[in-house]
Parts: sequence; structure tokens; C-alpha cells
Amino acid sequence: MNMIEVTMVRIYLSEKESHLDSLLQRLHDWEKLRGVTVFRGISGYGDSGHLHTASFTDLSMDLPLVLEFFDEPAKIEKILEHLNNTIKSMHMVKWNAWVNDIEDESL
Amino acid sequence: MNMIEVTMVRIYLSEKESHLDSLLQRLHDWEKLRGVTVFRGISGYGDSGHLHTASFTDLSMDLPLVLEFFDEPAKIEKILEHLNNTIKSMHMVKWNAWVNDIEDESL
Amino acid sequence: MNMIEVTMVRIYLSEKESHLDSLLQRLHDWEKLRGVTVFRGISGYGDSGHLHTASFTDLSMDLPLVLEFFDEPAKIEKILEHLNNTIKSMHMVKWNAWVNDIEDESL
Repeated sequence: MNMIEVTMVRIYLSEKESHLDSLLQRLHDWEKLRGVTVFRGISGYGDSGHLHTASFTDLSMDLPLVLEFFDEPAKIEKILEHLNNTIKSMHMVKWNAWVNDIEDESL
Repeated sequence: MNMIEVTMVRIYLSEKESHLDSLLQRLHDWEKLRGVTVFRGISGYGDSGHLHTASFTDLSMDLPLVLEFFDEPAKIEKILEHLNNTIKSMHMVKWNAWVNDIEDESL
Repeated sequence: MNMIEVTMVRIYLSEKESHLDSLLQRLHDWEKLRGVTVFRGISGYGDSGHLHTASFTDLSMDLPLVLEFFDEPAKIEKILEHLNNTIKSMHMVKWNAWVNDIEDESL
């Protein structure tokens, strides 16, 4: 199987920061990222130091959100530079990975 | 603490592709993977280029799904070869990691 | 952009084990971890070998939970040593990553 090197990225937001939509739009329209997945955590704590937990009676909690995407390293480096002013320090993580690449499939 | 090397894998599907159940069954029955976790994203975009977002009034959206699993590198390599024809190009990511290994515990 | 090395950790639990709250409290109060995110999987299988799947008619299922956190490698090593007796073998995974570090921002 042919695998090509990529950089994985996870960006940590919270629901109340709420610039998720503009960030997704930007990654899609400007940065031409092929794919992004957004996950909502059910609990956690971050800058505030307070624990946040989802419950079925309180859906308005400020829960953690994580954006995940990957692409070739050079493209990701540019995107991280572009995002650097809009993402808080210690909230954007990257690491090296490999992705399957089927040559005879149209990407 | 003793840690052993593993390969982490994340596979990106969508709810409408819906071969999740057969893939889980296969990983369990044929490939004898010890554990798999499936996550549902709340938003994202992929091949179609359209943003998909969950809302409480529309639970039938085509949301992203991610399968995550890990095992020793040689076993994962075989599994990735087996899955290669069933997973779209650029939708199966792997990287190296380490897992805790408590020797005197029954696995 | 300045990035500093970190160790990422993912710990795999299940809802029925239910020591999530005490683990979060411990990571926050004792280990002074800056941030933790908890995700709930919608399906999966683990030690029991049985598939667990969420449905809207059965919210009491024993679904997988994942705790994710990262910090500088030396701090994470200490935390993993401390947690080693409380987390099952093969349920705590770590890997190297890098996080954005904006120097003129108060952490």
C-alpha cells in the first residue's frame, strides 16, 4: 500500500468562543483544505480551570470543540502560519502521520 | 512504566456511506483487533466540499464518523493492506505511538 | 511560528467504569494539567469483545470515553507514572507532537 506523509492538526476551541463557523469557512474557501472534521467533547477543562460537563438538562454548556484536519506538510505549515494570530497559544497541536494514497482513484 | 510501540489508525467515513457496521464486524471477527472506538463529528466537510453540521432539529444529517484503533505495528500493517480496497484514498491515517503495558495484568 | 514539543495522551475508559470524574479532578487538582478534553464514542468494542452502539432509545449504554491531554514531555512522563496503577494495560497511549506557543500572550 502506498502511503504519503502528512501533518495532522488538532485545534482546541470552546463553544462560547464560537468562531467555529468562520474558521471552517476560511479553511474551506481560502486555504482549500480537502477535509475537516469537528468533534464536540462531553466534558473537560481549559483556560478557565473550571470543569465543563454536558448533561441532558443543560445543553447550553460551554463544551470543548476540536477541529481536526491533515494535509501535506508544506501546505499545513502555511495554514498554521495563517491561523497563528487567531488561535490561542497552546491550542493548536500538530504531528506527523501517513495517509493511504490510491493512485488510480480520482482525488 | 513499561510502554510498547503501537501504530495508531484513524479512518474517516460518513454516516451515509454506512458500511460502519460491517467494518466494525470485520475488524472484530477477522482481524481480531482488541479494541476499536467510533466517534461522530458534529460538523465538517470532505469529498463533497459541502459543510455538514449537526442540529437538534435535523438528526438525519450526513455527519462524519471516525474509527480509531491501535495495535502492534506488524499487525496494523496487515490490517491496512486488507482494508486498502475498501477505504477511500486519503481517508486512512496512521502514526506511531506507545501504549502502557502492565505485565502482571491479564490482557 | 514558534512551536514547542509536547506529549499527547489519550486514555480509553468506558462509561460504566465511571471513574471519569475522579480522574478529571485528579488531573486538575493534583497534576495541575492545563487542559483536558473528554470525548464520548458512539460505538466500539474493547475488553469484553462485545460491540457497543449508541441509539436514541437506549441512552444508558456503556459507551467508550476518551480523555485527551498534552503538556511538556517531562510533566507528562510524571503523570503517566502516577496514573499507571489506575489505568488498565493497553488503555493509555502517547505520542510526540508540537503546539503553538505565542510568546507575548499570557498563558
